[in-house]
Amino acid sequence: MFANHSTKTQELLQRLGAFFDQHIYPNEGRHHAELDAYRRAGNPWQVLPLIDELKVVARAAGLWNMFLPHAYKGQGGISNLDYAPLCELMGRVSWSSEVFNCSAPDTGNMETLERYATDAQKQRWLEPLLDGQIRSGFLMTEPAVASSDATNIQCSIRREGDEYVINGRKWFSSGAGNPRCAIFIVMGKTDADAPRHAQQSMVLVPRDAKGVTVLRPLTVFGYDDAPHGHMEVVLDNVRVPVDNILLGEGRGFEIAQGRLGPGRIHHCMRSIGAAERALEMMVDRLQARVAFGKPLAEQSIWHERIAESRCMIDQARLLTLNAAHMMDTVGNKAAKAEIAMIKVVAPNMSCKVVDWAIQAHGAAGVSQDFWLAEAYAHQRTVRIVDGPDEVHRNAIAKIELAKRAATRR
Amino acid sequence: MFANHSTKTQELLQRLGAFFDQHIYPNEGRHHAELDAYRRAGNPWQVLPLIDELKVVARAAGLWNMFLPHAYKGQGGISNLDYAPLCELMGRVSWSSEVFNCSAPDTGNMETLERYATDAQKQRWLEPLLDGQIRSGFLMTEPAVASSDATNIQCSIRREGDEYVINGRKWFSSGAGNPRCAIFIVMGKTDADAPRHAQQSMVLVPRDAKGVTVLRPLTVFGYDDAPHGHMEVVLDNVRVPVDNILLGEGRGFEIAQGRLGPGRIHHCMRSIGAAERALEMMVDRLQARVAFGKPLAEQSIWHERIAESRCMIDQARLLTLNAAHMMDTVGNKAAKAEIAMIKVVAPNMSCKVVDWAIQAHGAAGVSQDFWLAEAYAHQRTVRIVDGPDEVHRNAIAKIELAKRAATRR
Amino acid sequence: MFANHSTKTQELLQRLGAFFDQHIYPNEGRHHAELDAYRRAGNPWQVLPLIDELKVVARAAGLWNMFLPHAYKGQGGISNLDYAPLCELMGRVSWSSEVFNCSAPDTGNMETLERYATDAQKQRWLEPLLDGQIRSGFLMTEPAVASSDATNIQCSIRREGDEYVINGRKWFSSGAGNPRCAIFIVMGKTDADAPRHAQQSMVLVPRDAKGVTVLRPLTVFGYDDAPHGHMEVVLDNVRVPVDNILLGEGRGFEIAQGRLGPGRIHHCMRSIGAAERALEMMVDRLQARVAFGKPLAEQSIWHERIAESRCMIDQARLLTLNAAHMMDTVGNKAAKAEIAMIKVVAPNMSCKVVDWAIQAHGAAGVSQDFWLAEAYAHQRTVRIVDGPDEVHRNAIAKIELAKRAATRR
Amino acid sequence: MFANHSTKTQELLQRLGAFFDQHIYPNEGRHHAELDAYRRAGNPWQVLPLIDELKVVARAAGLWNMFLPHAYKGQGGISNLDYAPLCELMGRVSWSSEVFNCSAPDTGNMETLERYATDAQKQRWLEPLLDGQIRSGFLMTEPAVASSDATNIQCSIRREGDEYVINGRKWFSSGAGNPRCAIFIVMGKTDADAPRHAQQSMVLVPRDAKGVTVLRPLTVFGYDDAPHGHMEVVLDNVRVPVDNILLGEGRGFEIAQGRLGPGRIHHCMRSIGAAERALEMMVDRLQARVAFGKPLAEQSIWHERIAESRCMIDQARLLTLNAAHMMDTVGNKAAKAEIAMIKVVAPNMSCKVVDWAIQAHGAAGVSQDFWLAEAYAHQRTVRIVDGPDEVHRNAIAKIELAKRAATRR
Repeated sequence: MFANHSTKTQELLQRLGAFFDQHIYPNEGRHHAELDAYRRAGNPWQVLPLIDELKVVARAAGLWNMFLPHAYKGQGGISNLDYAPLCELMGRVSWSSEVFNCSAPDTGNMETLERYATDAQKQRWLEPLLDGQIRSGFLMTEPAVASSDATNIQCSIRREGDEYVINGRKWFSSGAGNPRCAIFIVMGKTDADAPRHAQQSMVLVPRDAKGVTVLRPLTVFGYDDAPHGHMEVVLDNVRVPVDNILLGEGRGFEIAQGRLGPGRIHHCMRSIGAAERALEMMVDRLQARVAFGKPLAEQSIWHERIAESRCMIDQARLLTLNAAHMMDTVGNKAAKAEIAMIKVVAPNMSCKVVDWAIQAHGAAGVSQDFWLAEAYAHQRTVRIVDGPDEVHRNAIAKIELAKRAATRR
Repeated sequence: MFANHSTKTQELLQRLGAFFDQHIYPNEGRHHAELDAYRRAGNPWQVLPLIDELKVVARAAGLWNMFLPHAYKGQGGISNLDYAPLCELMGRVSWSSEVFNCSAPDTGNMETLERYATDAQKQRWLEPLLDGQIRSGFLMTEPAVASSDATNIQCSIRREGDEYVINGRKWFSSGAGNPRCAIFIVMGKTDADAPRHAQQSMVLVPRDAKGVTVLRPLTVFGYDDAPHGHMEVVLDNVRVPVDNILLGEGRGFEIAQGRLGPGRIHHCMRSIGAAERALEMMVDRLQARVAFGKPLAEQSIWHERIAESRCMIDQARLLTLNAAHMMDTVGNKAAKAEIAMIKVVAPNMSCKVVDWAIQAHGAAGVSQDFWLAEAYAHQRTVRIVDGPDEVHRNAIAKIELAKRAATRR
Repeated sequence: MFANHSTKTQELLQRLGAFFDQHIYPNEGRHHAELDAYRRAGNPWQVLPLIDELKVVARAAGLWNMFLPHAYKGQGGISNLDYAPLCELMGRVSWSSEVFNCSAPDTGNMETLERYATDAQKQRWLEPLLDGQIRSGFLMTEPAVASSDATNIQCSIRREGDEYVINGRKWFSSGAGNPRCAIFIVMGKTDADAPRHAQQSMVLVPRDAKGVTVLRPLTVFGYDDAPHGHMEVVLDNVRVPVDNILLGEGRGFEIAQGRLGPGRIHHCMRSIGAAERALEMMVDRLQARVAFGKPLAEQSIWHERIAESRCMIDQARLLTLNAAHMMDTVGNKAAKAEIAMIKVVAPNMSCKVVDWAIQAHGAAGVSQDFWLAEAYAHQRTVRIVDGPDEVHRNAIAKIELAKRAATRR
Repeated sequence: MFANHSTKTQELLQRLGAFFDQHIYPNEGRHHAELDAYRRAGNPWQVLPLIDELKVVARAAGLWNMFLPHAYKGQGGISNLDYAPLCELMGRVSWSSEVFNCSAPDTGNMETLERYATDAQKQRWLEPLLDGQIRSGFLMTEPAVASSDATNIQCSIRREGDEYVINGRKWFSSGAGNPRCAIFIVMGKTDADAPRHAQQSMVLVPRDAKGVTVLRPLTVFGYDDAPHGHMEVVLDNVRVPVDNILLGEGRGFEIAQGRLGPGRIHHCMRSIGAAERALEMMVDRLQARVAFGKPLAEQSIWHERIAESRCMIDQARLLTLNAAHMMDTVGNKAAKAEIAMIKVVAPNMSCKVVDWAIQAHGAAGVSQDFWLAEAYAHQRTVRIVDGPDEVHRNAIAKIELAKRAATRR
């Protein structure tokens, strides 16, 4: 790609690649086996020994917390642009990000805390998170309303003396299945009478607070994604000290604005890695199988799909790098069109590439023997989480319409 | 639709609709609960009491074996065209077909037996199948080869004296997870030196034969579809009497040809029913949810998708009815272009409609709380089973090319 | 197709096919040459001798005015369903419809007059039109407003004593380029203060009325479609007797409603014929050309496109026949969803098929040496005329939304 | 975009932009009028006074021969990457490139001569071309064969003594309609018995050589693109000195390889400019028109199309810049995958965006009153010229397949 990676990134990428070759790819079977054993024993909601082992190795190798754009006590400090190829690589193996303490939603939560938390909040929650001791959840989406419009969020955060009393029902709280998940960032309404964008606030809610119930896992096309999980969580008169608020009452939107950029672009970087792997698998399968007298790889119908995959992947990668660079140079807010664009482009692209790879594999493609069906389920879901395509397209269009309207003034 | 259904069909359709209203829709929750209870207890591969109960009711109501185009001892005798709207209705609830003894692969197996089996074979296997006492499997696809080209099938059927010795590995043997599944129709090679289309034969293999191992279930996007299941089956020196052959050695292709038409069109009819239900769910959700100040149903982006869904569904239905009519009037072989066409059109259409419905539901759409993700997984798989899109498109194109070449002679 | 054509239609279709073989296909070169000669001589807006010659032959052969669903003085009386295959055939050669007095907009105008005109109006205008002596125009679309919303139409029709005074600017008045075009049906506002759907009326305006100026031809992707033409027409204080109104003041919408169905479905029938011809040309070209060592016809990428073309054409044809049957049996108004559906489906389908055929021809495909570029230009325009896709999709969606809403009451 | 343009380019771009504002956009009407006057007078194949006037101004402004990557006697020397935004700007007005002596096929021909011609050939042909005194043609495509496979080219170049005798029929020889077109580069076979890629050679053929007949213009969707033109040219025993060969006998492929990169990427840069302009026109129209009670710009169906347009344009631009950078840094041959990719992506993208813009304009969109139909015709043709999509996709796929095969060795 014409914007060559920085020397620092090239070096990191090389080391990360070596780590994958040595520790990640060879352990895909073990990961599956450990999870399967837990599942067959009746409880998949446990930390896998493999992950804990590899975290130690990764940390020792200096491959830790690379996601964090602004350094915190010596951690992170890698720009979004530099992080992009690293994150793309992690997209090739669904569970690998956690090994490097770079998995969602912890990354978004840590960045949120780094930006908006008080020193006390940082010490209490950010540091153990950066340390990989605990995990976290982000409780935003609600089953009862169209949460794509965040003003719809109904969860109530009512102040009573020195406490907030929280009542609400959240779902698709990803990561809340992990037994180490200790802290939730909860979005809810502190003032229903305030202007639309000042009604919502974010508060820190320890998972073990009274009134918190992690009700059940939601599935994604049949996958529960244990032990991570996408959970339904009930908050029933949960009480937290007022100090647990982030930034201040009514500033939930402001945080969401700053927070969502990085989370979205990380999803996109991983989508690109997933698409690359799917394309490799597609090519390998086509070269390995013969039908009607010749290898599938010689059929021009597959040439078209391979070529389109390559064109789409490279375009999406360039668009992601461009968005990352914008975030680094002009900030998440000024880069909102670029972030919205890549949030639409990347998962749609990867869904398409993965779908072709499935078709190239025949029935094997939808089965557990290949990673493709699981990848599709995940990529399809990315088109919904952190805002469905429609919301992002509307945002892009409105920026475009405003630009032209401005030229006519 | 301009070809109105026959009076017989209209009457059947009305009765079947009433049955759905009374017995199927109200029991969707119970079906889920029974399966879930088995699953949590550690073995989902059991017959559900609900199904057994409803089979009695359906049979008493005369809604039994409607799929069978040629009557056998008073059963069936409904044309493909007349069966189409009934089968479409069953497509709305995945598990409903079995209630009427109209579920795959038993329907295809029963029709195969009705057409090609000897009287002894019919008495032994067809009659208990028509009676709903046992279930059956069809063992064709193999993990080791591109089974879309049936000449690739490697399973060996070697004659030794009065027996066939069968060795092979099959997978995606649907229905083989059911504990009542008692008989397999196995496709394999009796003569590797014969002309390409005379190498394969079909034999009847009792599931309890020595050397048969139902190894494991395959999943479809994370669903195991228990208790039906898509199983991997190993045949290790399985011995059956030579009388177990269907039609004769080397006639496997001939049977496949005759067999596959109905199986394919039934899939398509159900795909249409699934798409109709998904469209209803999409419309209902869009009318129920408000975002950015107005119901989603008022957004023109959704008008486009609703309209395109309606256009695609109605076209696919007409094409299916046309193919069914061709099968009834000129036979499965002469209707091969029409069957191939609908096999491409229907599941692609339903995948698209279900995918839009998922998007309309947001995260709920990929979860277990709605039927959509499961429906997508199934419809996506239909694009592969009984021949992937690519094989059918090639067949259609070759017919088209030959037609024009003929005009130039 | 499963709804076999009636005996009458089969007989007509056979005769029409023979006419094409004998008189239309062999004269495509002559048509081109006559028009080209006029054009090079400086005025292509003349009646071609070929058309006049063939009209005599067609009429003598009883192939005349077949479009008219309700017989008028012995003319027409063929149902929409029966007319469909005849009209499809005419779609194969752009100029052929006029030979049978079945060309737009005369067909729509004649049907409008047959339905809504007074006896005097019929005698004055319908009879010479049915006789093929004159041609007609339909002046609806205006350059100044989004005419897809007919309530936007601004042309003023003001009553003064026994006359209407008409002022407006219309464009894309198809057929107004023909020197024999003698009568316009003009849509305009008689009462700007009436309820939205009662403001518009239709009046008959002789082309030679004072104040009528046929200003210039519009082109369609570079084609002027002479001598038919798509004209801009200025109406400057044009005066016509009040008797020239159709049906009555404020009833323009009502007429438009009844009128547009047949016009739309005729376009669709011809679109299907155009797509069939394009598919034939695509196949022929692919079989005739060799690249990279084998005929293009053996490339699986072309198999996909041929197969998709066949699937799309057959589906669109069935949908058209269904809509025609609905119009015949329940009326144009009750069939409005079906008409809207086919109006979206048919030209989009034919654009796609023609586009693939162009690609199969390489540069030849966009040139004047093949009919394809011209066909594309025409089919692309059909997606706009008589209502753009978006308007029809909205109509379909609203019907669908209303259906579901009704089930919840 | 994250790869900011160089200071030199930014400065050039600013000057070129100013030139467009002052001399190009305000003269679009005059260009149309001059051409129209010639056309009405019977001969559009003349140089337009406007072009000649503006060439003087552009040259004086230092906006001349910017396309040339390697400087020749002080001309050019701008890298492909730096030229990209300049060329994109020229894509906004079809006729503007010639004003800057940057129009195809002269650019490709000049670059070919700069790279491969002898000093004598350069002096005779390159210098007047760089000077803008003459124009040139490139005669490759033949009507009789699938020219997408260049080994099919049949034109015969037979040596007789000190001359080559050339016989062949070429078409879509763009630019050959211009009366100043003085020199053709002709591709043909010097040795039919040589290995496939050594059979073809390129020779310089003066347009006024005996035996050269510029037969007729081909149209593109009805446009003749006068005075530039896409001509059919017959070469009937044309004789040129052997010195007129480029590089040597049998080296036609080698030249084509080196030549086609820049030509292709220039097309793509202009396609992006065309798409940008179409998007602006789409937005403007949507904001100007009201239907069904609100501006079209508020319909979410148009938000989707605007957003998709922006996403596609930005991705295509990044991919083009990347390809240009590759050409600059590793050479046209090593960048062949990147060139093939953008050659597929850019015109397909611009066709889609222009098509949406047409739909936003209603009937106006297909007419001569807006530039859109003409732009569509041109962009659609780019999908065929310099290799159809299919050939480039195959090339991309083969590179991808080879990459994976290499990892398995």
